[in-house]
Amino acid sequence: MKLVRYGQPGAERPGIIDTDGTLRDLSGHVADITGAAFEAGLLDTLRGIGSASLPAVAGAPRLGPCVGDVRTFWAIGLNYTDHAEETGAPIPKEPILFNKARSCIVGPNDTVVLPPGSRETDWEVELALLIGRSCYRIDRTEAAAVIAGYFICNDISERDFQLKREGLWTKGKCCPTFGPIGPWLVTPDEFGDPQDKHLWLDLNGERMQTGHTARMIFPVTEIVSYLSHFVRLEAGDIITTGTPPGVGLGMKPNRFLRPGDEMRLGIDGLGEQRQSVVAYHG
Amino acid sequence: MKLVRYGQPGAERPGIIDTDGTLRDLSGHVADITGAAFEAGLLDTLRGIGSASLPAVAGAPRLGPCVGDVRTFWAIGLNYTDHAEETGAPIPKEPILFNKARSCIVGPNDTVVLPPGSRETDWEVELALLIGRSCYRIDRTEAAAVIAGYFICNDISERDFQLKREGLWTKGKCCPTFGPIGPWLVTPDEFGDPQDKHLWLDLNGERMQTGHTARMIFPVTEIVSYLSHFVRLEAGDIITTGTPPGVGLGMKPNRFLRPGDEMRLGIDGLGEQRQSVVAYHG
Repeated sequence: MKLVRYGQPGAERPGIIDTDGTLRDLSGHVADITGAAFEAGLLDTLRGIGSASLPAVAGAPRLGPCVGDVRTFWAIGLNYTDHAEETGAPIPKEPILFNKARSCIVGPNDTVVLPPGSRETDWEVELALLIGRSCYRIDRTEAAAVIAGYFICNDISERDFQLKREGLWTKGKCCPTFGPIGPWLVTPDEFGDPQDKHLWLDLNGERMQTGHTARMIFPVTEIVSYLSHFVRLEAGDIITTGTPPGVGLGMKPNRFLRPGDEMRLGIDGLGEQRQSVVAYHG
Repeated sequence: MKLVRYGQPGAERPGIIDTDGTLRDLSGHVADITGAAFEAGLLDTLRGIGSASLPAVAGAPRLGPCVGDVRTFWAIGLNYTDHAEETGAPIPKEPILFNKARSCIVGPNDTVVLPPGSRETDWEVELALLIGRSCYRIDRTEAAAVIAGYFICNDISERDFQLKREGLWTKGKCCPTFGPIGPWLVTPDEFGDPQDKHLWLDLNGERMQTGHTARMIFPVTEIVSYLSHFVRLEAGDIITTGTPPGVGLGMKPNRFLRPGDEMRLGIDGLGEQRQSVVAYHG
């Protein structure tokens, strides 16, 4: 199943993309697409509904973030062998963990705003997932069962704020609009093997990032299990799992986002995102 | 006003401590003590209620975390001149920002659980605050108006996980029970000057931490303003503002928590917390 949230920011309604690609409204059956809803049995509810019976949505509404009411936004750094190499960092022995802010989350095609003072805002196509069941200290064989679905995240990052402002990456990872997620939340049965997916990102039509999830240092189930040994994961937490090579920080000379730039990014089976970049205007 | 949440974990009810120290039930008037409730006018509602008309709560129920539905849990590191000195770290030029997890939050007197494998779990008495109004890029003169109240936080930290596990502090800051908050959320009018408060922590009756908020490197309003220039703060975010000297990591030799230890900590005007330390049992 491909689940979406559509409509104006803050007023998104739940929907589903049927096998013909038609967006159909789910709001008569479920309140929202959230981790708590999965924990309460959303999948069973959806399986009991024939999607043909759902009203088709007219037009092409804005798509919002594909998950509502995100609890904690976790992120893994330097998780592709080839990306670690391009940044000059050693291969991590354990997953590198940091946080993004809930308040940076936007829809998959929403505008990305360069924060005032930013000179080094960068792109990062990533495979992300939603935790659908609270858990603590689970092993790898149990991890798949707590994943409600997968989606694309552009883990936008201001490198100067991230690396040179006395922070722990946080300051460069949490600016408003730095977390486009979606377009769809794809359930694991439909997504298939998360370690067998291509991912890519184009800037102004030029391919910047090309990667494959087989080159993750820590695969998805290991990340979930590992993280669950430090924190109690909540239904509604999301985890973005690191980026492949081709970020602006890895280029010689560096290349960063400028107003007017257009990003387009995708992952096999998870659709595409497109974002226009603009300067901040109070 | 001193606001509390009381009752069993996950089923706390809102309450108020009246001027005689009596706990009175607020659940007939407000659903919960949250940032969203403040943003929607909680203070006006409370001012319209004579607390003598509220039912007194019998007995001495457990107190829960003094804030419900926390959105993002922000934390500032090395924010006291004398604590930075004891750890051997340079005085930061800008606030050091990291995150704790929502899921580590517990009540002020709940048991603290040492995570499996922990040998270096440490204490940190801190002044914390609740954001009661969403904001972005506010200046210091505007910061006081977005603070809904103040409370004690014990920013419990596993130093080995924090510093030696390829993380960005996060792994040692987010374990379950590592975020006792409360007992009360005290409104700014009643709390007074946040930069004129003593804070202290005892371990097994012995004074470990003694500090004063006048020695903060970055005062509360500067922290809120500064942070708001990187992220959009949400009503419901909480910020803990750093610890004074006397943590176990600063001692020679180091001293860390063991099962059976008892912590007691307080801040002028914000009451006291007491926690017993236990080992993890699956």
